[in-house]
Amino acid sequence: MTTTEAVQLLEKFRDGKADRDAVLRAFQAAPVADLGFAQVDLHRSLRKNCPEIIFAEGKTPAQTAAIARKLASSEKRVMATRVGIEHIRALRRVFPKARVHEAARCVTVERVPLKKRPGTVAVLCAGTSDYPVAEEAAVTADFMGNTVKRVYDVGVAGLHRLLRQLDEIQKANVVIAVAGMEGALPSVVAGLVSRPVIAVPTDVGYGASFRGVTALLAMLNSCSSGLTVVNINNGFGAGYAASQINSLAAGE
Amino acid sequence: MTTTEAVQLLEKFRDGKADRDAVLRAFQAAPVADLGFAQVDLHRSLRKNCPEIIFAEGKTPAQTAAIARKLASSEKRVMATRVGIEHIRALRRVFPKARVHEAARCVTVERVPLKKRPGTVAVLCAGTSDYPVAEEAAVTADFMGNTVKRVYDVGVAGLHRLLRQLDEIQKANVVIAVAGMEGALPSVVAGLVSRPVIAVPTDVGYGASFRGVTALLAMLNSCSSGLTVVNINNGFGAGYAASQINSLAAGE
Amino acid sequence: MTTTEAVQLLEKFRDGKADRDAVLRAFQAAPVADLGFAQVDLHRSLRKNCPEIIFAEGKTPAQTAAIARKLASSEKRVMATRVGIEHIRALRRVFPKARVHEAARCVTVERVPLKKRPGTVAVLCAGTSDYPVAEEAAVTADFMGNTVKRVYDVGVAGLHRLLRQLDEIQKANVVIAVAGMEGALPSVVAGLVSRPVIAVPTDVGYGASFRGVTALLAMLNSCSSGLTVVNINNGFGAGYAASQINSLAAGE
Amino acid sequence: MTTTEAVQLLEKFRDGKADRDAVLRAFQAAPVADLGFAQVDLHRSLRKNCPEIIFAEGKTPAQTAAIARKLASSEKRVMATRVGIEHIRALRRVFPKARVHEAARCVTVERVPLKKRPGTVAVLCAGTSDYPVAEEAAVTADFMGNTVKRVYDVGVAGLHRLLRQLDEIQKANVVIAVAGMEGALPSVVAGLVSRPVIAVPTDVGYGASFRGVTALLAMLNSCSSGLTVVNINNGFGAGYAASQINSLAAGE
Amino acid sequence: MTTTEAVQLLEKFRDGKADRDAVLRAFQAAPVADLGFAQVDLHRSLRKNCPEIIFAEGKTPAQTAAIARKLASSEKRVMATRVGIEHIRALRRVFPKARVHEAARCVTVERVPLKKRPGTVAVLCAGTSDYPVAEEAAVTADFMGNTVKRVYDVGVAGLHRLLRQLDEIQKANVVIAVAGMEGALPSVVAGLVSRPVIAVPTDVGYGASFRGVTALLAMLNSCSSGLTVVNINNGFGAGYAASQINSLAAGE
Amino acid sequence: MTTTEAVQLLEKFRDGKADRDAVLRAFQAAPVADLGFAQVDLHRSLRKNCPEIIFAEGKTPAQTAAIARKLASSEKRVMATRVGIEHIRALRRVFPKARVHEAARCVTVERVPLKKRPGTVAVLCAGTSDYPVAEEAAVTADFMGNTVKRVYDVGVAGLHRLLRQLDEIQKANVVIAVAGMEGALPSVVAGLVSRPVIAVPTDVGYGASFRGVTALLAMLNSCSSGLTVVNINNGFGAGYAASQINSLAAGE
Amino acid sequence: MTTTEAVQLLEKFRDGKADRDAVLRAFQAAPVADLGFAQVDLHRSLRKNCPEIIFAEGKTPAQTAAIARKLASSEKRVMATRVGIEHIRALRRVFPKARVHEAARCVTVERVPLKKRPGTVAVLCAGTSDYPVAEEAAVTADFMGNTVKRVYDVGVAGLHRLLRQLDEIQKANVVIAVAGMEGALPSVVAGLVSRPVIAVPTDVGYGASFRGVTALLAMLNSCSSGLTVVNINNGFGAGYAASQINSLAAGE
Amino acid sequence: MTTTEAVQLLEKFRDGKADRDAVLRAFQAAPVADLGFAQVDLHRSLRKNCPEIIFAEGKTPAQTAAIARKLASSEKRVMATRVGIEHIRALRRVFPKARVHEAARCVTVERVPLKKRPGTVAVLCAGTSDYPVAEEAAVTADFMGNTVKRVYDVGVAGLHRLLRQLDEIQKANVVIAVAGMEGALPSVVAGLVSRPVIAVPTDVGYGASFRGVTALLAMLNSCSSGLTVVNINNGFGAGYAASQINSLAAGE
Repeated sequence: MTTTEAVQLLEKFRDGKADRDAVLRAFQAAPVADLGFAQVDLHRSLRKNCPEIIFAEGKTPAQTAAIARKLASSEKRVMATRVGIEHIRALRRVFPKARVHEAARCVTVERVPLKKRPGTVAVLCAGTSDYPVAEEAAVTADFMGNTVKRVYDVGVAGLHRLLRQLDEIQKANVVIAVAGMEGALPSVVAGLVSRPVIAVPTDVGYGASFRGVTALLAMLNSCSSGLTVVNINNGFGAGYAASQINSLAAGE
Repeated sequence: MTTTEAVQLLEKFRDGKADRDAVLRAFQAAPVADLGFAQVDLHRSLRKNCPEIIFAEGKTPAQTAAIARKLASSEKRVMATRVGIEHIRALRRVFPKARVHEAARCVTVERVPLKKRPGTVAVLCAGTSDYPVAEEAAVTADFMGNTVKRVYDVGVAGLHRLLRQLDEIQKANVVIAVAGMEGALPSVVAGLVSRPVIAVPTDVGYGASFRGVTALLAMLNSCSSGLTVVNINNGFGAGYAASQINSLAAGE
Repeated sequence: MTTTEAVQLLEKFRDGKADRDAVLRAFQAAPVADLGFAQVDLHRSLRKNCPEIIFAEGKTPAQTAAIARKLASSEKRVMATRVGIEHIRALRRVFPKARVHEAARCVTVERVPLKKRPGTVAVLCAGTSDYPVAEEAAVTADFMGNTVKRVYDVGVAGLHRLLRQLDEIQKANVVIAVAGMEGALPSVVAGLVSRPVIAVPTDVGYGASFRGVTALLAMLNSCSSGLTVVNINNGFGAGYAASQINSLAAGE
Repeated sequence: MTTTEAVQLLEKFRDGKADRDAVLRAFQAAPVADLGFAQVDLHRSLRKNCPEIIFAEGKTPAQTAAIARKLASSEKRVMATRVGIEHIRALRRVFPKARVHEAARCVTVERVPLKKRPGTVAVLCAGTSDYPVAEEAAVTADFMGNTVKRVYDVGVAGLHRLLRQLDEIQKANVVIAVAGMEGALPSVVAGLVSRPVIAVPTDVGYGASFRGVTALLAMLNSCSSGLTVVNINNGFGAGYAASQINSLAAGE
Repeated sequence: MTTTEAVQLLEKFRDGKADRDAVLRAFQAAPVADLGFAQVDLHRSLRKNCPEIIFAEGKTPAQTAAIARKLASSEKRVMATRVGIEHIRALRRVFPKARVHEAARCVTVERVPLKKRPGTVAVLCAGTSDYPVAEEAAVTADFMGNTVKRVYDVGVAGLHRLLRQLDEIQKANVVIAVAGMEGALPSVVAGLVSRPVIAVPTDVGYGASFRGVTALLAMLNSCSSGLTVVNINNGFGAGYAASQINSLAAGE
Repeated sequence: MTTTEAVQLLEKFRDGKADRDAVLRAFQAAPVADLGFAQVDLHRSLRKNCPEIIFAEGKTPAQTAAIARKLASSEKRVMATRVGIEHIRALRRVFPKARVHEAARCVTVERVPLKKRPGTVAVLCAGTSDYPVAEEAAVTADFMGNTVKRVYDVGVAGLHRLLRQLDEIQKANVVIAVAGMEGALPSVVAGLVSRPVIAVPTDVGYGASFRGVTALLAMLNSCSSGLTVVNINNGFGAGYAASQINSLAAGE
Repeated sequence: MTTTEAVQLLEKFRDGKADRDAVLRAFQAAPVADLGFAQVDLHRSLRKNCPEIIFAEGKTPAQTAAIARKLASSEKRVMATRVGIEHIRALRRVFPKARVHEAARCVTVERVPLKKRPGTVAVLCAGTSDYPVAEEAAVTADFMGNTVKRVYDVGVAGLHRLLRQLDEIQKANVVIAVAGMEGALPSVVAGLVSRPVIAVPTDVGYGASFRGVTALLAMLNSCSSGLTVVNINNGFGAGYAASQINSLAAGE
Repeated sequence: MTTTEAVQLLEKFRDGKADRDAVLRAFQAAPVADLGFAQVDLHRSLRKNCPEIIFAEGKTPAQTAAIARKLASSEKRVMATRVGIEHIRALRRVFPKARVHEAARCVTVERVPLKKRPGTVAVLCAGTSDYPVAEEAAVTADFMGNTVKRVYDVGVAGLHRLLRQLDEIQKANVVIAVAGMEGALPSVVAGLVSRPVIAVPTDVGYGASFRGVTALLAMLNSCSSGLTVVNINNGFGAGYAASQINSLAAGE
């Protein structure tokens, strides 16, 4: 039942052309038989300040470009994550001004960049190999309207590197801590700040790192309070959740 | 180096009784050799509005009561989680007015209850067996100064139970979704709200639920954005993180 | 929005006391804000010929008896699975005529037994230790209105025991094959019948049987077509699914 | 012992040329020593309405084509699953009219298409990446004589997409629900329909999805009744089992 | 079809009272429909020199005693493995002369002990904690008619203990090597003897021994040739297989 | 200490040029300090009738050929397993008459073929994809002097295929049963024969077959007695152990 | 061959009563046939400064006491680890002066305490629940003649606690770092000291800590160099290895 | 706060231009806000005799060369591990005299080779496939100033190969034992020497070796005392720890 049909039904009823019970049954069935009009509302509430983001991995370049073009018809800003070289080419053909974030493996199209809300999201990573995941988080948070402070290469094997920048980190509203191998960085950080820390395990490591499982488990078992965790390499998810939190802080 | 010693050193220096380089070296060594004075500051910033909480499991009743008594000497409010019957008895001997949260397996002592900040934390759980973990999250969030909205027994096998209360859930600043077995509730919820959702897997289930591992994995792989996850049965951690987020929303 | 409220709203609208758009919005919100009336319909369609069944494990005897009593107020037949001695006592206090299926660890209360539909459900198990799970499946299927043919102790180590009863097995509409250890029985059976076979792994075994995981994996990897699998020890689930299939065969 | 030999033996016996005990021993040994004649019967009963299907993965193109040609000598319809480009070429050389189902990675040869039985099999999938597995299930069910209703891209992160088509889904005799990542779709669906639901986990996902294991475990631990599960990516198995169930519903 | 029925059918046929094709069909169906007469033959060939052995774990004392009594009616020797105190009591009530092998957790009843075949089975174990499993293997092999040579407490941490007895070990026809923890003993032994070595992992160990899984995996990956492996703690299986091998060596 | 040195030491002692205790100490140290002479004996006893076999995987073609050439200088027969195309080329350059066993991925060089001992080794496999592993077992057993009976494609999904050849299988001294997927074949076979059965899991399968782990676990948990297991795909190990057993049967 | 026999053989040879080759053969066989005399030497070299230590878990109190008594006949100092209350009682009956280390679950008997070598072994632990394992390490190192510096409750969630004592830690020759949960302590410590660090994971934690596996994996994947790891809860092993290292430092 | 700034602040204070409390606060914050000057000291203590080592895997050739060049500006010796062909080319362009250790996959640049300290590090490996890991350990230990004794191809399947060189092994200060497959070598070795043994599992093997996990677990569960373990294939880590130990032995 489309909104138009619903209106027509109601008008029929008012005009005595439709039975009250029939109207009732139609609306009762609606949420189940056809949620067309509800769906839009639902979506709008969900998408507040949150432009659509495409997960390109496992999609063909053509599919990715097609979805992006369709989104761009209604959205001012489009983002694609986990892009490969071919995805980038296909997206650039459609959006010549698309911006490629190479390390983050993301592409963003922003005709009207979002105004940054107050408060920063700090993105930390333990080693150089964790860059791509950290950048995915940073680019996502930036794209969703947040000021991002990058604090990279601060693994716990050289604690002074982290402590030297602690002041910056403590000023952030949310901290994203990205690490592979033994995944200890988020635990140490969450012991030093009073704001929410989102831990992102990466698949950096070898042998018994089991492609990020060790880092994931370590983060889930942190002895520090206030730590929450996302899937291995899920920089996007961390950036998204951080933006949700920062937007609350901004009173949105 | 205590603060007193530091003051003395500085005064010696001003009075020409200490060499500049010696003062410099002393302070350079300080963070490593003795962080006594820094530690206090560090702690204060961390403990803002966050009273100490004792994890009782693995501690003897005597130890638990002793720690609680010590904390109570400087804090107005004390909480212990994962308490057994013996822990409760020991705590009641020290704090006759201690409040026992049976389902949550928590004890709280609040001489001056915290004033509730605006904004609610919604705590959802999938089934009756998930109660204890959900209650641990709810009691923790409540203890840390948040208004908690409980929405229990809304597992995805009967979707209407969840949808019926969606309005309430969407009003919350943060949602904690607790589930065992296949752990699908947080995914469904995160698709319906625009606020941060913290997923808590429980060890409810049997066979291939592997004491909560299945629920944990499902939550980490959610197709919904904005979901972060804590350890199996970690209601406390979810309540703590939710409070951190809600305090940001309250402009603290 | 209850049905009464919905009727009132529609009447207000017809009487010109309510705005068309307001009515529309109210109904659009309904499926989400309050699905009370839809829920009943939904439930009825689901519960056709399927009386309520209580999973007692993890519930207190008192809770179990209370739920059973409530169900009995609207249902003619009630069943509880995974009952312990205390559950049985509590249920018997409420329902003196309750029937205890000891091996199956089930209790059934049937004021008006369901008329059996045509077609049989064959329940096979590999060894004596698999009895409880097989019986849970058999009692469930029986309770849901199916004639059950038990073929027990027909593990593949003594193939002749199985082949001797193959004729009986081939006559069934659905076959439930229960096995622990290496879980080979369902594979062998599915190669011998043309009807759906539901495999139930049990936690019977030791060492590398990993409490049923080996049997579960073996069944999921069967080289025979037409095999579907349920969780370890989930006799109830197999009986339930078999009944759904058999009811289709009966033209329900 | 061939049928011819058996006939000869019986005739010898009738003619007094063979001893009764010798005949008896020969037949007693038969099932074990040589089941040649039984095998055919066995097979016929199994193959009722179920044309042969070739699993091409791990077979060379030449082997696949040879088996297909041999089957086609006695069967009117042949199907191959998990075909690659080379398998397709080899099959097309033998069967120029072979139909290639690209997304499903299947090839079918149907000289006389099977008449469709009444009742539909609904095939649902959660995301676009689950297409190939869903299509394998759909093509298999179709090939085996069932009307298939495809309901794709209805993952639980956007519940309205699923609910909008619930009516269609509830009409089916059997539902196949295909999902990767957290594998929540089958649980939600099984809570909304009263017919058997077959869950198919896919290897879609990354990190802690462990190539489908997370989805598989989630499905096995579903809180919804009536769900059975097949191996990761086993669209064929789900389609096959669904057809077995639907054929029962058709009174075959 | 019983042998009597088969005889009657053949006689009917000879007498012209049964059709040839009917006889043929009956016998063709026999192996499948009723293998009663074949079963006995099958069994006899399997049981040659191999008295029945009862796995008591998971059986009640009453069940165990009942099975033992039934076996004793046709067998001269009965053995039960994995017995507890209650099983022993129940068995002793039936068989006052039953012999209890405490360390091996076995009970044997031998009215006429089996004559020992030539050739020995050597049973080695790494540490004192592996005793029970080694004894189960030794008692099983002994019960099945083999001379057993026990070589205990020869773990690889003290190689000289093993090497000192190498001569004895090399004389055996089969070697059973039992070990927990890192499970290295069978590898070392198989490198020193030219006869078949059966490796038995035990659940001795803690932490990352995972209740015998580490030992099991180590044995499966042995760099020594000629090693085969049984399940964790499966002393019975090793003793059984060793006896099968030794009986071949004895020309049986 | 070489044999020459040992002789010299003894002669010195006899001639009064060496102290008794010094001689004693030298020999006591010998097994540890230098086992040169013992090693040969040790080796000879191990290599009785067991020509050297090279595991080529992980070795370069050049290395493989070099080792083979060196072996051929003292052995009449050389075998290499797990060879690739390049290994074959390298071996053929050295041994133009080398025989390539393509399916088994083996190369054998037999200037004087071993005389076959009496008794056969039966090699069974479940499906066509298990061929390479079965062939590796068969070629190994053949190379080591055994008559091999191949019984292929007898998976449990079509039991009649196996039963038809049971007679042949029961005649063998040892049975090697090779299977992937659910790995049920060895269990079924071990229930039908009285001789030792060696189970070989293969990595054939997909999804939850976990590259052979499921088959391995199933075989370790067999409900049939007398089954021993080797590593995934370890056809060589099974052939080797079978030959050891068969040589015992031959009275060697 | 005992030393006495060896002497006799040599004397026979000198006296011309034994053939040179016979003597040679006897000694060649010795290392294998009977290593009795070598064994002692071997042992002595191994036991230098390392008194015997009994692992009591899995041994009966009687066995433990008997072994201890036997050791005490030749050793001045005896130690038992993993003792329970009954073990303690049994040991005290034999050694009334035995010292019980309650937290460490150890008993030591030292008639003549070992003189402490120079250099200290620092034992760190993350939380109070890690005490027993840390104490086992500390008591072992102390018993083996090392000065032990305990630095407890210095988990990474409160970094200042660790840094405050860094100076002490850096002075040690070897550091043992004990931690459960996410096991991050050893990584942080190994980044701060230049001496060998031995990491000991404990089973402290819940949920996805998997009884110490998470801590174990984290330690194995440390981004800090110079870290080596022992089994979960293996305080004894860490103390033993630390003592071996410290004795090297002491020039032993 | 840089050292310059610290000096300025102190001078301001002395000159009465800065308040005492302000100076105090600045220095208290220092360890946290800016550890710049401390960092250097920390590093120097850590790097004593330990030149920088680059882990090249996951770094581009350009990155690797750039880091190496930067290090070479302050260090006399540079090492890179896990290099590929491209890394080697890039490093040779910068350092034409760089030495390539092919088997070890390492490159070293030593303008002034480190003087070797007394005492040797023995590096053992089980099979030829373990070479690369053993060489990584050996080259690392050598580069860090240790005399290395290589004892290769001494797997436990041929014990005599190991025992023959035992004397050499027992002379070393530290033993590194490298093995894949069942990983038994370190256990056997640790039972024969009194010095610390560092075990290195490799990913050599197939099937249930799980890319080194089996070897890792076996080593962690060793029944020999004094064994510590590093990550799978972590030759570098073993060499580094061995050097730390040997430098202690050298009295550094």
